[in-house]
Amino acid sequence: MQTRAACLLADQQDPLASFKDLFFLPPGVIYLDGNSLGVLPKSAQARSHDVIGQEWGQGLIRSWNDANWFDLPGRLGDRLAPLLGAAKGEVVITDTTSLNLFKALAAAIRIQQKALPQRRVIVSERDNFPTDLYMIQGMIDFLQQGYELRLIDEQTSLEQAVGEDVAVLLLSHVNYRTGYMHDMAATTALAHQQGVITVWDLAHSAGAVPVDLNGSHADFAVGCTYKYLNGGPGSPAFIWVSPRHQDQFWQPLSGWWGHQNPFAMATEYQPASGIRRFLCGTQAIVSMSLIECGLDIALQADMLAVREKSLALSDLFIRLVEERCADHPLTLVTPREHASRGSHVSYRHPYGFAIMQALIAKGVIGDYREPEVLRFGLTPLYLGYTDIWDAVDTLKDILDRKIWNTKTHHQRVVVT
Amino acid sequence: MQTRAACLLADQQDPLASFKDLFFLPPGVIYLDGNSLGVLPKSAQARSHDVIGQEWGQGLIRSWNDANWFDLPGRLGDRLAPLLGAAKGEVVITDTTSLNLFKALAAAIRIQQKALPQRRVIVSERDNFPTDLYMIQGMIDFLQQGYELRLIDEQTSLEQAVGEDVAVLLLSHVNYRTGYMHDMAATTALAHQQGVITVWDLAHSAGAVPVDLNGSHADFAVGCTYKYLNGGPGSPAFIWVSPRHQDQFWQPLSGWWGHQNPFAMATEYQPASGIRRFLCGTQAIVSMSLIECGLDIALQADMLAVREKSLALSDLFIRLVEERCADHPLTLVTPREHASRGSHVSYRHPYGFAIMQALIAKGVIGDYREPEVLRFGLTPLYLGYTDIWDAVDTLKDILDRKIWNTKTHHQRVVVT
Repeated sequence: MQTRAACLLADQQDPLASFKDLFFLPPGVIYLDGNSLGVLPKSAQARSHDVIGQEWGQGLIRSWNDANWFDLPGRLGDRLAPLLGAAKGEVVITDTTSLNLFKALAAAIRIQQKALPQRRVIVSERDNFPTDLYMIQGMIDFLQQGYELRLIDEQTSLEQAVGEDVAVLLLSHVNYRTGYMHDMAATTALAHQQGVITVWDLAHSAGAVPVDLNGSHADFAVGCTYKYLNGGPGSPAFIWVSPRHQDQFWQPLSGWWGHQNPFAMATEYQPASGIRRFLCGTQAIVSMSLIECGLDIALQADMLAVREKSLALSDLFIRLVEERCADHPLTLVTPREHASRGSHVSYRHPYGFAIMQALIAKGVIGDYREPEVLRFGLTPLYLGYTDIWDAVDTLKDILDRKIWNTKTHHQRVVVT
Repeated sequence: MQTRAACLLADQQDPLASFKDLFFLPPGVIYLDGNSLGVLPKSAQARSHDVIGQEWGQGLIRSWNDANWFDLPGRLGDRLAPLLGAAKGEVVITDTTSLNLFKALAAAIRIQQKALPQRRVIVSERDNFPTDLYMIQGMIDFLQQGYELRLIDEQTSLEQAVGEDVAVLLLSHVNYRTGYMHDMAATTALAHQQGVITVWDLAHSAGAVPVDLNGSHADFAVGCTYKYLNGGPGSPAFIWVSPRHQDQFWQPLSGWWGHQNPFAMATEYQPASGIRRFLCGTQAIVSMSLIECGLDIALQADMLAVREKSLALSDLFIRLVEERCADHPLTLVTPREHASRGSHVSYRHPYGFAIMQALIAKGVIGDYREPEVLRFGLTPLYLGYTDIWDAVDTLKDILDRKIWNTKTHHQRVVVT
């Protein structure tokens, strides 16, 4: 695809092309930020109309049973499960990724307190998404039991970090900034060899890349439904536990939704059997219901075709930037090897922030991540090859003509 | 109001009567369960249409700034504040009541670990809403620092329970089952005399009864927006901290939304100043946005007029049951004294569950709470005196004719 015409042809031959019609895409926009907030499924307005007007408005309290609100976390979790390499009864949709990380980490620590009680190290990566590190820090600070956080970085490899003093390894499968993807099976095996329990953050994986939690013998996983799964802004997150740990794990955010009989109003907490004990309080039903619209679409797509197109899109992006923006100080921070690449492509540029603002102003919406990183999310269900051509064309134009605002760059504002 | 005609007249003279037009009420229903799930504000469909179609669909990621999604927890918290006797900057809307209880309890414990480090008792009530107890149990179990839960019940009074070994007192202001309301100022004063920090659960108070957190010198409070505030099913909860503790409290669910600069992507957690450090992860924006529809209405009403009507409705309910259902084994469990009564009325009856099912089948929707309790929520913004008359009329008919199903009673199903 050396020309726009070749990209157009590729779009015509794309077996996933028709999925685009299932989403609303604002006119004049090339959306390369579906890894931050996915787009709107066309079915979501009608669904919200039903949930609000019928289930809430007409059904009122009866909808907890009649509209199966109470079962939503498990029912949607069961639907999501195949996209994670998980089975029914292993996933619930609930709360936020940060909170689910806390639950999974607490459950993993508790298992280790019984199995290998002397271990007090939790390993993660320095460039993990910050909330993962913050949740670990909060837990360590709260427990005051001598736990410490050890970070993998340029000085410390994974192999060095995961020693016999380590209780838990908490990693993002795909890095939010670089797009680097871990080999989940190999990394989990390495951890298990050392007696270490794994917690995987799948925020940038679910719906984006093939995930095989059971095949990888992973222990716990959490992730996000509002990125590649198009669940809506801040839609509730998910949490998975391996069948090995079911009915044996424990977590401290033990609210009534995780009780084995929530309406018995017992004084003592008794965890529900299975994954449901990861639930805590009453869930945001309108936001949660909308997740199904995106899931309906994701489940129609062949995940291997999605992966193939994702790699084709990112290969195209990388090659076009190489060919057409070679004169500019753009440094690719995403791995070139397919096996190590998620579904976004990132570049460093000294004026990364201002360039992204210029791109957004021209309708090419990616996002910026400190430090200096331009990040482009590639979502095969609604992006085509021509979109990539046009996005790089706009990037080249902005770079060639230096039409970014250096003042803006130095007055960075809050952006998500 | 000894007759239905008198009730009709009272409705005509009711200064709050016009509020009913702002809600959708299903035809043929008398809804006495607004203390479990409030009704649908008519404005909510249009609001959801905007949030989903415009803010999500058109604005996409830009709406975090352009539609002020990122500021919603604080902006809605500021709007809610006057209903709690709180000021701007003291409240955020976020997560669930259970999770916010955990945060408030952890913050209170941390303050006491510095002030009175030997104290290891947390006091609550045996008949508190179970999730409050479960969250305390989860925290105690997790900390493994010798904390214990002491429960107030028939054997142990509040005065006996709150001794010099107590760190935190966690109470529901209005009991979910009986409707008993604590004197917040007096109870807080009693706790403070003993050096005890208070956490108030306002689930059945916010929007239902006048609350004066600052006037009562309370320390922490949490509560619910989906009951009397009509925020929608499972809409996010709220949390408040006294200005005395602002910038001094700490909580372990320390996700990136509570960071002082979430987009700096720093490795170390640094709490935001003020109430925002109670935030954790990305919030369910559609559900959260709808809260404003209910708040808009609640803020138009004079809270003293709401209270006056609430008491008039519950007085009427109690008197009519007394007069018209005297032959039946109904035991009032709600206090007769106005100062000790929230905004619902509850009765025990040996066949409580089955009677409630029969009431619901006839369109009088209250709810059932173990053990044997028929619970009737009284929401002055959309209930009239005639509704109470008609509800008791239906109750009397069911009781007189014994038209409940004893088989159903003994095969109780899950109900919220």
